[in-house]
Amino acid sequence: MQASAFCRSRVGPRKPPLCAVCRPLKLNYMVQYSPTLDAAFAALADPTRRGILERLGRRDASISDLAERFDMTLTGIKKHVTVLEDAGLVTTEKVGRVRTCRLGPRRLEDETKWIEGYRRTLNERLDSLGEFLERTKGTLP
Amino acid sequence: MQASAFCRSRVGPRKPPLCAVCRPLKLNYMVQYSPTLDAAFAALADPTRRGILERLGRRDASISDLAERFDMTLTGIKKHVTVLEDAGLVTTEKVGRVRTCRLGPRRLEDETKWIEGYRRTLNERLDSLGEFLERTKGTLP
Repeated sequence: MQASAFCRSRVGPRKPPLCAVCRPLKLNYMVQYSPTLDAAFAALADPTRRGILERLGRRDASISDLAERFDMTLTGIKKHVTVLEDAGLVTTEKVGRVRTCRLGPRRLEDETKWIEGYRRTLNERLDSLGEFLERTKGTLP
Repeated sequence: MQASAFCRSRVGPRKPPLCAVCRPLKLNYMVQYSPTLDAAFAALADPTRRGILERLGRRDASISDLAERFDMTLTGIKKHVTVLEDAGLVTTEKVGRVRTCRLGPRRLEDETKWIEGYRRTLNERLDSLGEFLERTKGTLP
């Protein structure tokens, strides 16, 4: 069966109805092509940024607090905080001369879901392999 | 209490014993400064690479299979596969002219643990906030 244009183009103002090949892939497609997942995983790919999230998970902190904690310049910390802000993981608010950072609206729910889904697929595959080995026990040379 | 040199230097052949300030941070330090976490999260920060992992989760595939599935050039797919290989998430084996890709030894266990730990901290913080609000109900103006 031929895959519909949806699968090949990936974009377009009006998507044609999904063919039988593409339909089961729709959920994966939606989860896979997610700019928010891209931004969150990229934000987590740095030890300082993971550290900032852990620190803010305990309590809010100013840019200066974070710079002191991570032994970095204010400019360096600001760059990391901007990446976290762009990913929706942190918000900041400036009052007077102090910019306070706190955790943002996104709580890594989608990232957890993606990893859990992936690990579930792996487990199912291992189960199938186990069943196959059990079924064919003694029949293989 | 003054933080020990361990917290400030982060490196060194012989680490001094941890002070009371640094000791509770040791686990976070070990998890936070992990090149494998950096590489895995960076690998996951791209929709095509997440797609390749999902595809290989179902069954092994050649570079050509993947190129066709993701409508990309062989060179483009190879670059993505190399990033996944460097992160230990995929292994490849060349037999004749065909390079077969399969899932590697790493199964995102550490990444799951990090995200779970982070979400646990958030929940504990929300619980504390709830308890505080419950305790102070009616006492605030």
